[in-house]
Amino acid sequence: MKAVILAAGRGKRLSRTSPKPLTFLLGHTLIERTILSAKEHGITDFVIVVGYKGEEIIEYLGSGEKLGVSIQYVKNLDWDKENGLSVLKAKEVVGDEDFILLMADHVFDHDILGLIPSNTSEKCVLLVDGNVDGVFDREDATKVIVRNGSPSAIGKKLSKYNAVDCGIFYCTTDLFDALESTVSRDKYRLSEAVQRLIDEGKLDVVDIDGGFWCDIDTQESLKYAENKMLHSLTKPTDGLISKHFNRKISTKISRMLVRTRITPNQLSILVFILSMTAAGFFIHMSEFYYLLIGGILVQLSSILDGCDGEVARLKFMKTDRGGFIDSVLDRYADSLIIFGLCYGYWLVTGDILIWLAGFGALIGTLVFSYTNARHEEEFEATERKGIPIRRDIRLFIIMVGAFLNQILITLILIAILTNAENLRRITVTSSQNS
Amino acid sequence: MKAVILAAGRGKRLSRTSPKPLTFLLGHTLIERTILSAKEHGITDFVIVVGYKGEEIIEYLGSGEKLGVSIQYVKNLDWDKENGLSVLKAKEVVGDEDFILLMADHVFDHDILGLIPSNTSEKCVLLVDGNVDGVFDREDATKVIVRNGSPSAIGKKLSKYNAVDCGIFYCTTDLFDALESTVSRDKYRLSEAVQRLIDEGKLDVVDIDGGFWCDIDTQESLKYAENKMLHSLTKPTDGLISKHFNRKISTKISRMLVRTRITPNQLSILVFILSMTAAGFFIHMSEFYYLLIGGILVQLSSILDGCDGEVARLKFMKTDRGGFIDSVLDRYADSLIIFGLCYGYWLVTGDILIWLAGFGALIGTLVFSYTNARHEEEFEATERKGIPIRRDIRLFIIMVGAFLNQILITLILIAILTNAENLRRITVTSSQNS
Repeated sequence: MKAVILAAGRGKRLSRTSPKPLTFLLGHTLIERTILSAKEHGITDFVIVVGYKGEEIIEYLGSGEKLGVSIQYVKNLDWDKENGLSVLKAKEVVGDEDFILLMADHVFDHDILGLIPSNTSEKCVLLVDGNVDGVFDREDATKVIVRNGSPSAIGKKLSKYNAVDCGIFYCTTDLFDALESTVSRDKYRLSEAVQRLIDEGKLDVVDIDGGFWCDIDTQESLKYAENKMLHSLTKPTDGLISKHFNRKISTKISRMLVRTRITPNQLSILVFILSMTAAGFFIHMSEFYYLLIGGILVQLSSILDGCDGEVARLKFMKTDRGGFIDSVLDRYADSLIIFGLCYGYWLVTGDILIWLAGFGALIGTLVFSYTNARHEEEFEATERKGIPIRRDIRLFIIMVGAFLNQILITLILIAILTNAENLRRITVTSSQNS
Repeated sequence: MKAVILAAGRGKRLSRTSPKPLTFLLGHTLIERTILSAKEHGITDFVIVVGYKGEEIIEYLGSGEKLGVSIQYVKNLDWDKENGLSVLKAKEVVGDEDFILLMADHVFDHDILGLIPSNTSEKCVLLVDGNVDGVFDREDATKVIVRNGSPSAIGKKLSKYNAVDCGIFYCTTDLFDALESTVSRDKYRLSEAVQRLIDEGKLDVVDIDGGFWCDIDTQESLKYAENKMLHSLTKPTDGLISKHFNRKISTKISRMLVRTRITPNQLSILVFILSMTAAGFFIHMSEFYYLLIGGILVQLSSILDGCDGEVARLKFMKTDRGGFIDSVLDRYADSLIIFGLCYGYWLVTGDILIWLAGFGALIGTLVFSYTNARHEEEFEATERKGIPIRRDIRLFIIMVGAFLNQILITLILIAILTNAENLRRITVTSSQNS
């Protein structure tokens, strides 16, 4: 299935010089974001309708090879008229197939595209946002009235409405017929053709159900979208320290990192080296300030550990393999930090107890990750009933322990908490088994 | 969907006293195996046609509650005639729905039932075994001629044939029509009705493609099936030691265990206790024979570690949760054994190096299991290219190391091999990533 992207308008409210689709947001231009979001849903053939400064857009995106997609361009010389005309220009290239229609200047959660029919559909489908109070710059939005799940009217000027057009369409060729009919009566807006589809009973709507989208028109909306997207990087599995502290810093760092060429895998390795350095400082804890520096480096690595995943998601570079490498390096980082603490403490005190505590902490920590790897969904669901001892919390405990110079107690604490949680996980599973 | 099981015949070649379906094979009667195999494929409603000593079968199975299924019984007083009549007796209870037809005295891989249509099918489907040379007691089997994927003849007396009837059918009500027609002409064999379905173009065949099945008629066939089933418990992921040594012993033990009430989870815990005992002996390795006993116990635990899974499969008690508990206990067993070796060695020598080696071995071992948990399929596929350092081999190395009294070298070896393999796994994944 092809996707048609409208990128013909001027959007002078955002910039006086470059065309709006080439505005940067978190490391990618708006139109690149639209293309890459669609690509994540398996779409690789694009038709882009250009107009205002179209040559700049064509020069920037080229054949699409750089993004791993194929792009055809259609020029709309009447770009200063309304957007319906731009859609109609794509008719010849699209042919008889159904297609997806997207706006170059709308950003949205990648997941939202999953709501669109993946096979052929009898009717056109428009994604709408029923949470109208949450829509940014609602005044300027295209409003929709939905009654009993079906649309009854669409337009910018509706005074009473209960949904807003998100600018994401699944289209059959009925849309071209509707457009030809409205354009022949000098109505050039896309929404006028969509109203015709509604009148003919050829349009369905699907609510995005709290998903994020934003029409980028002004610097304010750009800023708003950026904040929303950074905020959405917090994972439901984040522990307390991660959620309330680490993420607030790591997302700010990721916002800078997306502008660079640093890849998520490089970040994973960088964070691993940082953990190794922390372990090295711990080994020399006979000097107290080495212990302090080690503690700081551990917490720093905990913060930066969020960045690889964040950058991967913001730059559409998320892969299973990247996640795997990151997670194995995290296990080694955990292990080396515990080892550094043991060895350093033993050098200072010669107390064999530290090795027992260290073994306990190491076993508990690694088996904890092992149970997560085997039953992630299950233990996420019951996590509130368990002991909160995820990585962010463990590393935080280690930092505090280093500051207080209480290494033995720190490792005993981690050993007890992790192994107790592992025991709980076995027990939970066995009782549900019988 | 209901399953009809034929259990009316006498089968005097196997026993002179009890009805054949109640013959025990690896802890369950033949008819229980048939029921539980079907249950694994979601079938919970059974119609059992009884005849010879039917009351014994009814008394044994009851309502089916004990097996977690529901059973209705149909009596065939003419059980000494051929089996077609038994099928026909089930007609009223089955009604208009499609059903599965199974033989109480046939055993088969659970997987084979997956070849049967799970929804409605226009035609009847018969599972056949195209590997005729591999069929046990071929003389007595019902032969089938298959041409271009379609059956052209069925019967016991065919002289030329290229497939054998496995006694597993997916049936539409066409089978009843065919049976009524053949029985009215005094032909009482099921195969005669099936021949009629073939003539009318109402039968498809599906080859079981190397899957195991066996018609149990004699003591020899019972023995044959038992050996085949025990042999099939070897997993493709088994390491060298497991495949060529441990499994040969563990399956013999499992053959005895299935006759007891011991559950797979109890076995997992028992093996864990054995590993703990081994670790305890290692701690006291100052006496050399304690080290020897520890080594023997470790290898013994490695052998018995196969039994929980084997018993679970033989007794239809395999669950994800059981597998999870076993795997977490294995991780703890691994850890405790390494800890015991370290602590015992340190008590004897006071050499701090053992803790470094122990940490290395522990990290390598647990992260190895972690990578398996995250990417089991992938690393199984590339395992031949990797370092063979699965659990069976690690425990074997530890036994040998204990016998040779070379604990430090043993742990250094395990540390190097496991961590090298973990490194390989990261590298393999990252190169495929780019």
